[in-house]
Amino acid sequence: MKAIQLTQFGIPHLQLTDIPTPAIGESEVLVKTTAVALEYHDLIIVENRIPFGIPLPLVPVSEGVGIVENVGSKVTRWKKGDRVIIPFISRWQAGKNTPYNDQLRTSFTLPGLLAAYSVQPENTLVRTPGNLTDTAAASLAVAGLTAWTCLVEQANIRAGQTILVQGSGGVSLFAIQIAKTFGLKVIATTGSQEKEQQLKDLGADEVINYKTFPAWSHEVKRLNGGSGVDVTMDMAGTDTIEQSILSVKQHGFVGLIGLLTGTKLTIDLIPLITNYIRLQAYSVGNAQELHDLVRAIETNNIKPVVDSVFPIEKVQDAFHRFKSGKAFGKVVITF
Amino acid sequence: MKAIQLTQFGIPHLQLTDIPTPAIGESEVLVKTTAVALEYHDLIIVENRIPFGIPLPLVPVSEGVGIVENVGSKVTRWKKGDRVIIPFISRWQAGKNTPYNDQLRTSFTLPGLLAAYSVQPENTLVRTPGNLTDTAAASLAVAGLTAWTCLVEQANIRAGQTILVQGSGGVSLFAIQIAKTFGLKVIATTGSQEKEQQLKDLGADEVINYKTFPAWSHEVKRLNGGSGVDVTMDMAGTDTIEQSILSVKQHGFVGLIGLLTGTKLTIDLIPLITNYIRLQAYSVGNAQELHDLVRAIETNNIKPVVDSVFPIEKVQDAFHRFKSGKAFGKVVITF
Amino acid sequence: MKAIQLTQFGIPHLQLTDIPTPAIGESEVLVKTTAVALEYHDLIIVENRIPFGIPLPLVPVSEGVGIVENVGSKVTRWKKGDRVIIPFISRWQAGKNTPYNDQLRTSFTLPGLLAAYSVQPENTLVRTPGNLTDTAAASLAVAGLTAWTCLVEQANIRAGQTILVQGSGGVSLFAIQIAKTFGLKVIATTGSQEKEQQLKDLGADEVINYKTFPAWSHEVKRLNGGSGVDVTMDMAGTDTIEQSILSVKQHGFVGLIGLLTGTKLTIDLIPLITNYIRLQAYSVGNAQELHDLVRAIETNNIKPVVDSVFPIEKVQDAFHRFKSGKAFGKVVITF
Amino acid sequence: MKAIQLTQFGIPHLQLTDIPTPAIGESEVLVKTTAVALEYHDLIIVENRIPFGIPLPLVPVSEGVGIVENVGSKVTRWKKGDRVIIPFISRWQAGKNTPYNDQLRTSFTLPGLLAAYSVQPENTLVRTPGNLTDTAAASLAVAGLTAWTCLVEQANIRAGQTILVQGSGGVSLFAIQIAKTFGLKVIATTGSQEKEQQLKDLGADEVINYKTFPAWSHEVKRLNGGSGVDVTMDMAGTDTIEQSILSVKQHGFVGLIGLLTGTKLTIDLIPLITNYIRLQAYSVGNAQELHDLVRAIETNNIKPVVDSVFPIEKVQDAFHRFKSGKAFGKVVITF
Repeated sequence: MKAIQLTQFGIPHLQLTDIPTPAIGESEVLVKTTAVALEYHDLIIVENRIPFGIPLPLVPVSEGVGIVENVGSKVTRWKKGDRVIIPFISRWQAGKNTPYNDQLRTSFTLPGLLAAYSVQPENTLVRTPGNLTDTAAASLAVAGLTAWTCLVEQANIRAGQTILVQGSGGVSLFAIQIAKTFGLKVIATTGSQEKEQQLKDLGADEVINYKTFPAWSHEVKRLNGGSGVDVTMDMAGTDTIEQSILSVKQHGFVGLIGLLTGTKLTIDLIPLITNYIRLQAYSVGNAQELHDLVRAIETNNIKPVVDSVFPIEKVQDAFHRFKSGKAFGKVVITF
Repeated sequence: MKAIQLTQFGIPHLQLTDIPTPAIGESEVLVKTTAVALEYHDLIIVENRIPFGIPLPLVPVSEGVGIVENVGSKVTRWKKGDRVIIPFISRWQAGKNTPYNDQLRTSFTLPGLLAAYSVQPENTLVRTPGNLTDTAAASLAVAGLTAWTCLVEQANIRAGQTILVQGSGGVSLFAIQIAKTFGLKVIATTGSQEKEQQLKDLGADEVINYKTFPAWSHEVKRLNGGSGVDVTMDMAGTDTIEQSILSVKQHGFVGLIGLLTGTKLTIDLIPLITNYIRLQAYSVGNAQELHDLVRAIETNNIKPVVDSVFPIEKVQDAFHRFKSGKAFGKVVITF
Repeated sequence: MKAIQLTQFGIPHLQLTDIPTPAIGESEVLVKTTAVALEYHDLIIVENRIPFGIPLPLVPVSEGVGIVENVGSKVTRWKKGDRVIIPFISRWQAGKNTPYNDQLRTSFTLPGLLAAYSVQPENTLVRTPGNLTDTAAASLAVAGLTAWTCLVEQANIRAGQTILVQGSGGVSLFAIQIAKTFGLKVIATTGSQEKEQQLKDLGADEVINYKTFPAWSHEVKRLNGGSGVDVTMDMAGTDTIEQSILSVKQHGFVGLIGLLTGTKLTIDLIPLITNYIRLQAYSVGNAQELHDLVRAIETNNIKPVVDSVFPIEKVQDAFHRFKSGKAFGKVVITF
Repeated sequence: MKAIQLTQFGIPHLQLTDIPTPAIGESEVLVKTTAVALEYHDLIIVENRIPFGIPLPLVPVSEGVGIVENVGSKVTRWKKGDRVIIPFISRWQAGKNTPYNDQLRTSFTLPGLLAAYSVQPENTLVRTPGNLTDTAAASLAVAGLTAWTCLVEQANIRAGQTILVQGSGGVSLFAIQIAKTFGLKVIATTGSQEKEQQLKDLGADEVINYKTFPAWSHEVKRLNGGSGVDVTMDMAGTDTIEQSILSVKQHGFVGLIGLLTGTKLTIDLIPLITNYIRLQAYSVGNAQELHDLVRAIETNNIKPVVDSVFPIEKVQDAFHRFKSGKAFGKVVITF
């Protein structure tokens, strides 16, 4: 089958090649890839900047959607032609994650999705939302699910609360859409004048340019009637965590999601303890939660933000667009 | 002060009279009544149909809003002129209710609100939403709060779920508005063709006329893609509980809120146990939850449905309108 | 293999016979049965009293433990010789149950466990507690797990609360042990003078003979300092539900578990609504919860109560003992 | 009345003096102090090491118990002679804390308890456990309640889990007792050989001397069968947070409670995100939670650990004992 399989690291080495089509077991499904989306970890895997290293050769990219091509002899839930979202943590059906589930992560310990086909387990595939094209649905399995589980399962968001969303990455844009769907007030930050309007168009009630307000927690509170917000998701790590913590109110929730500016956090205990703050690291989620997200997308006709779409032959252009930091929404590659 | 004080039971005895204006204590607030809304229990109190009986003379009506007229010497949270929602369970600030809190219920063990002034505790008053007139806000303390706590605190509703709402009483109409604010799909029942359109205009995605579908649980499932709904609130008791239970899916939630057709429920255990169903009786809620509702109303500019407004001099007309069962939304009385 | 396969209903037809040993798939495990325990539904299946009927021929009994005999080619979690608890709802790994999971229930839609071997899926087997013999562990998958999930996951029991436990069935005895492990006060009911002492020996702080106190909710409150209890599990249905509801306090929890005296409940809404009571139907639970129970059993060296042990050749005696209602603890059959 | 009122900072200035007995309002209670316990913040207030400063003159000490001496005209919940626990956050009855509640903290913005009498609000006093002397109950309002709310309300501990408890401060010793009451396995750390046995005597299943194992997270996992623990409470801040985070498993809970070695935390995001870890800062709790703790103490006859008891005349000795770091359990001062 056609696939992008790296034998050396680096974007220039993303080249189409032929590799064997994998065989399915009794309880497995062969999925024909239709669209994938790029995540930050896809970039650093390709550039060999993952701290623990991924061995070559490797097929990159960790989230996407496809169409069922074939099913194993014991599979009852899917049939040829079904549109499905491919899981990132392959065995995680429901409940809490476990070391056993965690052994298999797409593009880390399993082959990635830049290939014509992949083998998936019957029980963690989730149907693609009926209101979305495959291009639009390509980023649900990681970016969408991370925003959903963090906000809905962990932060337990509810109408009338205020959320602070940081930047314009895929998780943050989903967070805006999910928060508006649940009836929250949304304050967003950005460093780009151009994106200010895009964030408002997506639903942000207020936008703060962090270049204008480097200590933006004050501006957050001013825009929230003098009070901290109920929830934020810290997306950049080292450079943002202090302001994130200062932006929330008593019993506030700070999701620890991103590490764009570094993984070392320096934190002052005093505001944390005074305000009973919760710092909750999270990523992804399970198939039952992904199914919940799919229902919410269908019921509310949420349309994920797609920055640009590249055919598989232009995969290097897709990675360059992603790496530029200029994208507003997901960079998608189609087959 | 002017007040409606019953010395005999019955709507014809609702007459304006003069009674002493109450004095406030150090931590109390004198609230000038501006608008009240009628609840089902107000009617049956006036008609002496409450099983345990309320002694005469009595000032009826249990929910409403007003303006702070005066404050006790130790009050710091309120000042003259503040717009406030009056609590129904007078001492219930937050957390779980207790027998101690429960001793004081407006119009049951405390004077009701059909009076020019009432004395309220500092700590359970909640500010009136800035986006609502007093007329619109008059039904938040009981009808609005019952819908909110049942759906948000007990059923933990979330976008993508489906809720079944029954009839057009105050709680049910709030439930539609709250559910749509949280991104749910709403199926509503009614027995009136005229109200079908009103329910859709308010946000119901589907409406079932229960006269056409007496065993409406089948129609509920048909409209929900073959599956039961996640949540319903049973509003009529005796006549509806069976269909309510049959309408929900596995792990489904049935709020037990209303008793319009009777208080005796006959329930079959088999579908309950097979589906792990939760039956949750609830009413009202605490001041912290009411404050959460106020924020949600402001953020999402929710406008409670007012059927009709009567000046205090027309109080008997208001009760007759309420009793007719024709109202769509709350019957409000203003001062 | 040796098995008890009914070709006619009735205890006298429980006869050892030979049937083919089942084959395992790639992700399946062949488990050699060592001990099973009898549940109420096992009896009514054998006696053909299940309302919806189970087709003949059938191998009865729904919970038990065994030893891994062989594993499929893709199985990594288990190896020959491992001691395992066999799941009742065969596919339910974690999170909420679903119609798909629910299709396969041991002894209902799958073969029961009165056979030398059974085929089980890799991912819902749970290790047998290290501190228990197979005889002692035979009743964890249904009776133990029902008590655990109802109390821990649904009722969220905690030290200092009071629980009312009803009768001496397997679920109730587990409930006493679990409640004592969590630091609760336990009040138990029984109709037998002999069992009063057995219940106290197991940890009940107070025992009420319901023959002495037919309206036992009063006695429950008297023994609980005048207040209702936090939690009860209704075990008998028709005859007990009224007293169960009257026994709990505000925000109280009534588990709907058993139906020994009938499945029709007649319920008065007034005490439910006044006290915000939750009626929660529940049974069994998922593999992740069963694993939590196993850890609790090991950490606290909980020993399930075994009434009597019969070899497979005496299977009819086992059913007669169970049916007599005299058992205190589980009736176990060994291979 | 007799009181210890500082007019200069420092332990030597803790001197008995006479100050006016305060007057009570309508809804207030005059409480005669019987016993108080020392917290770390009491020491640093006396030594003027609180970052934000407390103005002189001040009456120190923030937790204790007493006897009702007199009640205001509207008080119905208490009468002369009742034994009561005095709240630390004076207005926090239930639910979440708020800026309004937080304005009044005993010994910070309200007078402390080293005085013969104090004025308390009716609604946040909690009855002293019937099984405890006042000396034993003196540390429930802060140390006991902090351990309880963190473990029960935030971490949601349950039997079969493992908790790691750090050091021998008041909160940690309560944590051991609470965790054992709920059926957890307890691993404790200490730097003192002498305290190893004391910790085991109190219920710790395993004790690690952190001087022997500076990177004690490895030893924690070894003692827990190779897995991280479910819950820990970080008590020392700067020096311990790294090992605390490395000690918990997936979805693990790290309470941020103490700051003995400093308030600056340096945290690595990678293990946090990989394991979905929750860092939850917490302290104290509300009156409803304190009442839950009282019930748990009574039901399970928990006896708080008292290191030493000093009469009010020996108050300086008490502070010196506390400051020595040698205490195992609370240092109590009686009147």
